[in-house]
Amino acid sequence: MSNKKKIYKPQAISGFPEWTPEVRRAEQLWMDHIRSTFERYGFCSIETPSVETLDAIKAKGGDGESDVDKEVYVLERMHKEDGDKEARLALHFDQTVPLARYTAQHFNDLIFPFKRYQMQRVWRGERPQAGRFREFYQCDIDVINVDDLPLHFDAEMPAIIYETLSSLPGMENENFQIRISNRKILIGFLNSIGVAKELIPKVLRIIDKNGTLIDEKSKQELKLVFCNENEFLKFDADILRYEFINLLGNYNSYEELHTQVKDFLLSELLYRDEYDDQFEEGLNELEFVMKQLSHLPEGSVVADLSIVRGLDYYTGTVYETNFIKEDGSLDLDYGSICSGGRYDDLASSYINKKLPGVGISIGFSRLFDRIRSQGKLPELGTSPAHIMVACAHEDEYADMMEVAKTLRENGMNVETYHKPTRKTDRVVKHANKKKIPYVWFTQYNEVQNLKTGEQIKADPKTWKAE
Amino acid sequence: MSNKKKIYKPQAISGFPEWTPEVRRAEQLWMDHIRSTFERYGFCSIETPSVETLDAIKAKGGDGESDVDKEVYVLERMHKEDGDKEARLALHFDQTVPLARYTAQHFNDLIFPFKRYQMQRVWRGERPQAGRFREFYQCDIDVINVDDLPLHFDAEMPAIIYETLSSLPGMENENFQIRISNRKILIGFLNSIGVAKELIPKVLRIIDKNGTLIDEKSKQELKLVFCNENEFLKFDADILRYEFINLLGNYNSYEELHTQVKDFLLSELLYRDEYDDQFEEGLNELEFVMKQLSHLPEGSVVADLSIVRGLDYYTGTVYETNFIKEDGSLDLDYGSICSGGRYDDLASSYINKKLPGVGISIGFSRLFDRIRSQGKLPELGTSPAHIMVACAHEDEYADMMEVAKTLRENGMNVETYHKPTRKTDRVVKHANKKKIPYVWFTQYNEVQNLKTGEQIKADPKTWKAE
Repeated sequence: MSNKKKIYKPQAISGFPEWTPEVRRAEQLWMDHIRSTFERYGFCSIETPSVETLDAIKAKGGDGESDVDKEVYVLERMHKEDGDKEARLALHFDQTVPLARYTAQHFNDLIFPFKRYQMQRVWRGERPQAGRFREFYQCDIDVINVDDLPLHFDAEMPAIIYETLSSLPGMENENFQIRISNRKILIGFLNSIGVAKELIPKVLRIIDKNGTLIDEKSKQELKLVFCNENEFLKFDADILRYEFINLLGNYNSYEELHTQVKDFLLSELLYRDEYDDQFEEGLNELEFVMKQLSHLPEGSVVADLSIVRGLDYYTGTVYETNFIKEDGSLDLDYGSICSGGRYDDLASSYINKKLPGVGISIGFSRLFDRIRSQGKLPELGTSPAHIMVACAHEDEYADMMEVAKTLRENGMNVETYHKPTRKTDRVVKHANKKKIPYVWFTQYNEVQNLKTGEQIKADPKTWKAE
Repeated sequence: MSNKKKIYKPQAISGFPEWTPEVRRAEQLWMDHIRSTFERYGFCSIETPSVETLDAIKAKGGDGESDVDKEVYVLERMHKEDGDKEARLALHFDQTVPLARYTAQHFNDLIFPFKRYQMQRVWRGERPQAGRFREFYQCDIDVINVDDLPLHFDAEMPAIIYETLSSLPGMENENFQIRISNRKILIGFLNSIGVAKELIPKVLRIIDKNGTLIDEKSKQELKLVFCNENEFLKFDADILRYEFINLLGNYNSYEELHTQVKDFLLSELLYRDEYDDQFEEGLNELEFVMKQLSHLPEGSVVADLSIVRGLDYYTGTVYETNFIKEDGSLDLDYGSICSGGRYDDLASSYINKKLPGVGISIGFSRLFDRIRSQGKLPELGTSPAHIMVACAHEDEYADMMEVAKTLRENGMNVETYHKPTRKTDRVVKHANKKKIPYVWFTQYNEVQNLKTGEQIKADPKTWKAE
C-alpha cells in the first residue's frame, strides 16, 4: 500500500551543455558583447527556424564526400499518422545552409550588400562522446552581395573577429592567432605544376588534414591519390623543386608574403605551359587583405598557406583561428575557434543570381566552455539584482513594495526578500550568497553596502549605488 | 550538354516563423524589453537544452488524458547504426518540464527561492495547419522554493506581466485583461456539494472548455460524466441552487469577490457534511492576491472563477490573459496570450523534496505575430547603424576606416559604404533605404543629417548624433 512515487534521477544528456545560473550570466555577457560588436559594424540580426527540409540540408555546398550528412538530426512526430504527407525536416547543422536558403527566399526584401549576423544553436547528430557538443551556439557574420563583392570585406571579417574575441570577458589574457589564406593560391599552384583537376580536392584534403605534403604519412596518402607511380614521382619532384614546404609556412605581413612567396614562385611558374593565373590572383588578394589588417597587433593575424578549410564552397579567402600555447606554438589539438571564408556563389541551388559572400563563424559554446572550465570567467552572482529590499513585518510589506517600485523606476534591478523577517543578518547572508551588493531595510529606511558594511539612512527617490 | 543547375525554389515551412531583418529588429526590441523587465525584478536567466529524454517528457505533470504526448518531435540520427544504445531524445514542448528536471538536477547549486526566467524556443509536432506555430518562443518566469513559497509571489507574477506587456513597443494601445482564479475554489465547491473525486477533473474540463456548466452543450457533456441519471440531477440542482452561474463570473476587486462569492456561498456550504475547506482557502488566497494587485489600472486584472487551466499540475492560483475587443468583451477566439499558475510540487518525479512554485508564461511568437500582422510594430530599418561612412576614392579608404573606428570608439554603430564612389546621392539613397539617419563623407569631412538634409563640417572625435 506504499504511496511512494518512483524517482527518476535526472541526468545530463551527453553533448547538450547546460549551465548553472552563474555561468549562464557569463554566457549572456558574452552574447551581449558579441552582439554589440557585430552591431557596431552595422550587421543586422536574422534568425532562421531550427529546421530546414532534408532536401535543403542535402543541397548544401560540399564535395559530396564530407561527413556532414551523417551528422544530421531528423525530426519525427511521435504520433505521425499514415498518409501524412510532409517534407522531412532536420535540425540545421550550421548557419550557412539556412543563410543561403534565407537569402534566396527573401531576395526581394533584402538590401544588398546584405550584412547579417546570426547567433543560434546548431545541432550535430553525433554519437555521444566526451567533449563533443551535439547542440551548441554559433555566432556568424556574413556579407553577401549581388554579382560582385569588394575584397575590403574579406579584411573586415578578421578585424571584427579580432576585436570581438580579444575583449570577451575572461579572454583578455588569451593568445590566439587568426590565420588567413586564399584557396586560389594552392589550386593555382597545383594546376600550374600540372596536377589533374580531379585530383586537386584530394591533395587539398591531405594538406587540410596534415598541414604539409612532404612527411611520410602524407606521401603514403598521396600515392593512393596518384594511382600512377610516375605521376606521383613527378608531383613529388615538383613540390620539392618549388620548395612547397616553405610555401606552406606562416607570413606575418604582406611584405613577407610578397618577397618570400610571390616573387620567388611566380618567376618560376610563369614559364610553365600549364600556368594558372589563379595563383597570382590568390596571392594578390591575400596581400591586399593582409595589408588592410596591418594595424592589428603583430602575430594576431598571419597568412598561412596551409589553411584549406574542408568545405569546398569556399573559393577565395579562408580563415582559421587557433589559441597559441605558452611555448608560442599553435594549439592545433584544440582545433579552430573561429573559421570561415569567401564563397563565389552562395545560393546557386535556389536562385538564378550570382551571390558572392564572405563570412566567419565563432564556435561559441566550445570556446565558452573552454574558458569556463579553465576558471577564467568573471565571477558573477546568480542574480541580476543591484539591491535586495527587505522588511521586518507583514504590515510593512506594502511599504517595501513601494521602495522596490521607486528603485526600479530609477533603473535598478531589485529583488525583494521573500518574506518579512526581523532577522537582518539572515537577509544580509542571503544577499551575499547571491552577490547582490546592497540591502535596503524598509523598517529603518536604511541601506547597507555589503562590501563595506556601512549602513546609512536613505530615500529611495534619490539614492544611488556607488 | 546543358550545364544548367537545377534550381529548388525555397519555401517557408508551415508553422516555423521566419522574419525579414526589419521585423527581426522589432523582435529583438521585444526580447530585450522582456528580459530587462524580468531582470528588474531580480529574475536570473537559465537555458536548458532543446531536448529532454523522451522519458522525462512523458513524466510530465498531467492527467494522462492531455494531447501533449501527441505533439512531440522525436529526434533520429540520420545514419544511426544498429546497436547504438542511447536514450531517445525529444524537443521540449514547454519550459516547465525542463525547469522541473533542471531544478532537481542542479538542486545543490541553486539558491532558493529560485527565481528564474527562460526565453527559448519550444516545439509542438503538430500537423501543419494555418496559424498554428510548430516552433515558437516562450518567455517564462517562475519562482520555486523548498517546502513552502509565500503567497506574495502569486501576486508578483501578474504585476510583472502587466508591466511587461503594457509597455511592449506596439502594444501601448492594446487592451488586455489578466484573469486570475484559484483551483481550490472550484474543487472545494465540487467536493462540498458531494461530487465524487474521480469525476471532478472531468467537470473541470467542461468548465475549462465551455466557461460554464449550465448551457445545453455543457449539460449534455455532464450527463456523460455522471453516467448515473440521479447523480446528474442532484448535481444539476445543486449548481443551480448555489447560483453557480454567478460564481463563474468576473470580479474586479477583492471586495466584490468577498461579498458576492465568499459571504454568500460560505454561509450555505458550511453546513454540508461534505464541506471541504479548500473552498475557503482558495477564496482567501485569491482575495489576498487581488488585494496586492489593487494598484493596477481598473479592469487590467480581474478574478474570474471560470479559469481552470488544462494542465492538472496547477494546485492553486491560475492565470490567463486575453485581449479585450473594441466592444469591451474578451477576445476568447484568439486564446490566452499569457498563462500559468501555482503548483505544489514541481519536481516530484525527480527528487524527494517538496518544491512548490508559481510561474507564468508569455506565448511570445504568437503575440508578436499578431501585433506584426496588424501593422502595429515600430518602423525600424534593417540596419542597427547610427551612421554610414563613405569615401570617394580608393586612396581615401584608410581615412574612411579611421573615421569609422573613431565613431565606433565613441559608442556609435557604424556601417561603411561598400565601395568608394563620387556619387554622394547614391550613398544617401542607400542609407535612406536602410533608415540610417546620418551619412559621413570622408572626402569633405562632412556629415549629412538625412532627415533635415543639413550637411556640416565635423570632427569624428567630437561629433555626436542629435
